[in-house]
Amino acid sequence: MITQSLGLPHLLGIYELDAVEIGYILDAASEFKKILHRPIKKIPSLRDKTIANLFFENSTRTRISFELAEKRLSADVINFSASTSSVKKGETLLDTVRNILAMRVDMIVIRHPHPGAPHFLARHIPANVINAGDGTHEHPTQALLDAYSLRDHFGQLKGLRVGILGDVRHSRVALSNIFCLLKMGAEVAVCGPPSLIPYHIESLGARRIKTVDELVEWADAVNVLRIQLERQKENYLPSLEEYHRFYGLKRDHIERRTDPLVVLHPGPMNRGVEIESEVADAAHSLILDQVENGVAIRMAVLFLLAQQSPVR
Amino acid sequence: MITQSLGLPHLLGIYELDAVEIGYILDAASEFKKILHRPIKKIPSLRDKTIANLFFENSTRTRISFELAEKRLSADVINFSASTSSVKKGETLLDTVRNILAMRVDMIVIRHPHPGAPHFLARHIPANVINAGDGTHEHPTQALLDAYSLRDHFGQLKGLRVGILGDVRHSRVALSNIFCLLKMGAEVAVCGPPSLIPYHIESLGARRIKTVDELVEWADAVNVLRIQLERQKENYLPSLEEYHRFYGLKRDHIERRTDPLVVLHPGPMNRGVEIESEVADAAHSLILDQVENGVAIRMAVLFLLAQQSPVR
Amino acid sequence: MITQSLGLPHLLGIYELDAVEIGYILDAASEFKKILHRPIKKIPSLRDKTIANLFFENSTRTRISFELAEKRLSADVINFSASTSSVKKGETLLDTVRNILAMRVDMIVIRHPHPGAPHFLARHIPANVINAGDGTHEHPTQALLDAYSLRDHFGQLKGLRVGILGDVRHSRVALSNIFCLLKMGAEVAVCGPPSLIPYHIESLGARRIKTVDELVEWADAVNVLRIQLERQKENYLPSLEEYHRFYGLKRDHIERRTDPLVVLHPGPMNRGVEIESEVADAAHSLILDQVENGVAIRMAVLFLLAQQSPVR
Repeated sequence: MITQSLGLPHLLGIYELDAVEIGYILDAASEFKKILHRPIKKIPSLRDKTIANLFFENSTRTRISFELAEKRLSADVINFSASTSSVKKGETLLDTVRNILAMRVDMIVIRHPHPGAPHFLARHIPANVINAGDGTHEHPTQALLDAYSLRDHFGQLKGLRVGILGDVRHSRVALSNIFCLLKMGAEVAVCGPPSLIPYHIESLGARRIKTVDELVEWADAVNVLRIQLERQKENYLPSLEEYHRFYGLKRDHIERRTDPLVVLHPGPMNRGVEIESEVADAAHSLILDQVENGVAIRMAVLFLLAQQSPVR
Repeated sequence: MITQSLGLPHLLGIYELDAVEIGYILDAASEFKKILHRPIKKIPSLRDKTIANLFFENSTRTRISFELAEKRLSADVINFSASTSSVKKGETLLDTVRNILAMRVDMIVIRHPHPGAPHFLARHIPANVINAGDGTHEHPTQALLDAYSLRDHFGQLKGLRVGILGDVRHSRVALSNIFCLLKMGAEVAVCGPPSLIPYHIESLGARRIKTVDELVEWADAVNVLRIQLERQKENYLPSLEEYHRFYGLKRDHIERRTDPLVVLHPGPMNRGVEIESEVADAAHSLILDQVENGVAIRMAVLFLLAQQSPVR
Repeated sequence: MITQSLGLPHLLGIYELDAVEIGYILDAASEFKKILHRPIKKIPSLRDKTIANLFFENSTRTRISFELAEKRLSADVINFSASTSSVKKGETLLDTVRNILAMRVDMIVIRHPHPGAPHFLARHIPANVINAGDGTHEHPTQALLDAYSLRDHFGQLKGLRVGILGDVRHSRVALSNIFCLLKMGAEVAVCGPPSLIPYHIESLGARRIKTVDELVEWADAVNVLRIQLERQKENYLPSLEEYHRFYGLKRDHIERRTDPLVVLHPGPMNRGVEIESEVADAAHSLILDQVENGVAIRMAVLFLLAQQSPVR
């Protein structure tokens, strides 16, 4: 089925990948998506691997998505969450992970509040490392599943205009998406409250668009970022009502267009805040496709990395 | 082994079942109980199914019982508990569940504090839904395992006199038991502090008995409900000592009878409050049988529902 | 491969074992360690067993180590932790465990804050019981993996001089190690703040050494106990800086010797408190070997106990 190897032992960020590598992962995910539509959704590819999911931040969908991907590849799975962990007991991250590896674990999926934590691990441990989100830095499998969903819908990414709407400053989803889409030849624009758009965003190659009206006019698809409600306390956000008024994606926006606007959201959604319910449930919403494609992308990433032992 | 189909895609409550359907589930459970007594307790029946256990309320025994039932049917299992979930992040129940289903999950076992949550899901999602307890409404697998345990002990349910003792008002176990036993031709009486017996209980077909003495005299079996200690704070309950004195089931009660009194309890027990230790451990206590039969009942329910795709 | 049986249904403590039995477990663990180095690390030995891990105290590494050992023996695994359990609801330990067993569970791995909890269970339930740590009493699999690691390194335990450094008073690791090493013919000395060394420690057969300098001069290997930071609040400990100064194992100590000092630590480590980083990472540190050997020891214990049904 998949005969080539990606040639990489880790997936740390989209920044480290080139267009060929990204395309290769997306192609592999297509094959895995077919498996997910069979009656028996399980294949024995990773039955000799043990994978540890280390979640130092709460997560539901990403953890379950990885866990399902791992189980469908027949890997043995160990789950570890910070709330019940030795981390509280003063152990260093490296000691925690080295201990888990010493139990003969082959691959590490890590979500961690500190940007660069997966990169640090990858330099120090003899296991494949997959970044499942590191602070406000990257969330590469999310960007890959977004790219997959867009490519699946539009046929190609080249020339596509994708808007990213919301709190771009604190979003690892935004950063990984900008890297991924630009590398694949798409155009990217960001839009959000000025306090939540990084000052030098254009230096990454993304354009800045001031209003949602203009963004919707320009874009083929809009990826609506989740508003993290705690940002309000930090004085980054006006009231949620004001946020919704000025930066929520609404039915009005999509009805104003002649061709349909494709909508993505990484979830979990705050309906009525960053996105109106009617938009989330509209015909051209890819939100549930994203979730389904997430399992296929993660199967592809795990499968491809497992072919490549980390060099020590 | 089991050749017929139940013809139902969901198990939402006992209210929705008729005597034939209940009897059919109990018969199937007998077959599964035999499997649990084999050295290898696993069968491949559901190996092409993925089941998500969504527990929005804490639970130990029900969750473990479902999980064991699922694993023994060789299903892939995903566990999800509210304490680590996106629910806290403001996502709607329907979005949470739709997301999980988008990962190609086939069946949903749900416990939720809101009465009717499973019914709501069943109307909106393309998966089999099993109610594992919805607020103070129903807990159908508990009533089925209670009925199974009684039928197993007495040979039949028809004409059997079953007392339900305790906080009937807040008990989903009581309500599901009343529906189930009456449908199967048993007689039901309830007994408890007046503040904890619903005013119109007779309209369901159950009789009201004032004292434990009279209940014990009347009944063939008594199902002792768990006292939820937090009810005391809500002024529903006198002190626990007083509760025990007036509504606890005691050794005196069972010794006073000429024939043995069969005792059930859904667990976890507060020994010395609603039930005396000697009663819980007496020869005619079915309490541990209930637990064992619970796995068989849940295997039967999962197996039977899986034959019936939900219509959309 | 392993043809003999240990003849014991439970592993409650090292106290209950003799040298032949300990040696037999260590020998079996050698066989299981070979399996852990194969590409496919799984064997079907316990595929007809269901094992419940009951952790009434937080734990990461011990729980994961047991879980991996169980999965590699192909057992069905049920996890249960106190934080989500019925224990909070006022149920007795025996009722909780009897309930779990009624679901046809064959083996119980238990960590509990009360010394003797596993012994109590073993007297009352028809399942194999493994003590994974009971209060300040015993932690037998830790002592076995420590002994295995030392035997693996030195070739034999007889005549070996092993120092135990730190809070001996509150350490189940220390107590199980003292029992195990003395039974196997090693010599044991303890060292730590006087308030943290039990008064009658010599009655167990261990000697008391006053300073770390003297301990390091005497010993072939030192097992550094973890400082539980909460002890400081209980006035057992001076400041952590003072503890480190007087009782931390430092690079100076190991460099002063002509032959290398072998170092063990049960983890998780407080680097810079009870052990200097350079010591933890030194060539003769067995700390990661301990973790790896832990899985092999636990596979051996589970495998051997499973041969012996508990007598009722």
